[in-house]
Amino acid sequence: MSVIYNRVALIGLGLIASSIFWAIKRNGLAAEVTGYARSAETRDTARRIGLCDRVCDSAAEAAADADLVVLCVPVGAMAAVAAEIGPVLKPGATVTDVGSVKRDVIESVSPHVPEGVHFIPSHPLAGTEHSGPEAGFAELFDNRWWLLVPAEGSDRQAVARLRALWEGVGSNVDEMDADHHDLVLAVTSHAPHLIAYTMVGVADDLRRVTDSEVIKYSAAGFRDFTRIAASDPTMWRDVFLTNKDATLEILGRFTEELFALQRAIRTGDGDHLHDYFTRTRAIRRGIIEAGQDTDAPDFGRVKQPK
Amino acid sequence: MSVIYNRVALIGLGLIASSIFWAIKRNGLAAEVTGYARSAETRDTARRIGLCDRVCDSAAEAAADADLVVLCVPVGAMAAVAAEIGPVLKPGATVTDVGSVKRDVIESVSPHVPEGVHFIPSHPLAGTEHSGPEAGFAELFDNRWWLLVPAEGSDRQAVARLRALWEGVGSNVDEMDADHHDLVLAVTSHAPHLIAYTMVGVADDLRRVTDSEVIKYSAAGFRDFTRIAASDPTMWRDVFLTNKDATLEILGRFTEELFALQRAIRTGDGDHLHDYFTRTRAIRRGIIEAGQDTDAPDFGRVKQPK
Repeated sequence: MSVIYNRVALIGLGLIASSIFWAIKRNGLAAEVTGYARSAETRDTARRIGLCDRVCDSAAEAAADADLVVLCVPVGAMAAVAAEIGPVLKPGATVTDVGSVKRDVIESVSPHVPEGVHFIPSHPLAGTEHSGPEAGFAELFDNRWWLLVPAEGSDRQAVARLRALWEGVGSNVDEMDADHHDLVLAVTSHAPHLIAYTMVGVADDLRRVTDSEVIKYSAAGFRDFTRIAASDPTMWRDVFLTNKDATLEILGRFTEELFALQRAIRTGDGDHLHDYFTRTRAIRRGIIEAGQDTDAPDFGRVKQPK
Repeated sequence: MSVIYNRVALIGLGLIASSIFWAIKRNGLAAEVTGYARSAETRDTARRIGLCDRVCDSAAEAAADADLVVLCVPVGAMAAVAAEIGPVLKPGATVTDVGSVKRDVIESVSPHVPEGVHFIPSHPLAGTEHSGPEAGFAELFDNRWWLLVPAEGSDRQAVARLRALWEGVGSNVDEMDADHHDLVLAVTSHAPHLIAYTMVGVADDLRRVTDSEVIKYSAAGFRDFTRIAASDPTMWRDVFLTNKDATLEILGRFTEELFALQRAIRTGDGDHLHDYFTRTRAIRRGIIEAGQDTDAPDFGRVKQPK
């Protein structure tokens, strides 16, 4: 593939930014990639492992002269970063972000984007439970969705160019409006994460009673919840605070259903339970057919002997 | 390894029984394994794929002359099966089961076990989201826990022999009392399964609104929930109906915690959320150190092109 943006700036150097860097390099999609992270330790790590062609000591320095600036910081930090880089943005440049929430990011970032610069929010539906500059790898986005959330009246040529970049790193790209994005993600990602965090917290309370048996005997179910609940705390705090309404709406529905199932257990209504569990099984088939997972059985991954 | 029981009978031929069969054969732990399943279709499948040395047309026929009978049916079907095989059990034989709930199984099965036959309940902490006679494989129990729940006064020699079998199929074996087992499993497995079923059900409702986007964009979190929620509906119905008290107690704690986190979201209490998410992250490390999972990043498994 060929160069899509001459110079790309990555602001924030965690799992997503480092994966973007390696994926851009894999296919030669940019001539130069600059990077900036707030923490000096992260910048040192980036320099040591060759993450970015040039690691800068300020966001403004990294963003100056960039044709594309990608904001890869937690959603709650977007406004401050946008305010810092706004004055140095080149006319005709594009700004995007990778935040898991879109309405809030649009409201935080837009006021700082000068006339003549294109702001095109985006969100890769990809990640792992690891975080930090050393967590990234070039394949993270392969065959994953990357959602673009352009405002009405966005420059279609700028949108097409950004789409080409995210396709170039391996993603399938779709467009969606911000409110709809935030609702879909509340269902598929935000509410499930809060639920997993909650269940792991409950077990942790009980662990003190049962002397670490909960960890020792963690079977399917709980084991998967702990993986989800190992994700970056700052990122997820910001997601819940900024996608408050949609998340609370879905959690409300969830609680309602959970109470109905608890009542079925209490009253011994086996038919209700069986019907419910049969219906959810069908959804799994849909996900496998959609190529978002395989139906290879998962029975826990066991540490290999050295 | 050498023969531990001359003849083993497997009653019920699903994921667990078929895995037991292949694991016994892998290490030559029994001279003959008989099998029975209620459904004629399952018996035909078993005969076709060579599951069991002899597939019988009644539970009593399979259990007659067996040195070990393993009840591998859903928890709700244990009593009926025990009543059927009780009269043919050989003096000195052992009966065990693989049910996910132990107090209820003990109450259902014990009355049907004649004097001179050892009943030693057990439970392998292993499984996949698949079910049926073709879902089994010899490695399912490797390095997984298998819990023995002997009554006080059980014959220690009979317990040691059963332990040797489950170690022979690859498991680590521990002993535990029935009530404690049911509480630990409510935390590590039963409550997480109900929660996953609930969240997938909520998404299914919403899917009708959003035209399958929930499936298309299912990211980490929801994707893992759907796998958990694809488990066998009959087995899980029985688990919840028979481990009612412990499951409802844990779900009560869960709801309490979830409400506290929802309130933190609503009031914008980021510190509370961040502290909670940091604490749950530590538990994941415990599970990896305990060898129940690896810390290889999981970013969803993608269908391989043919």
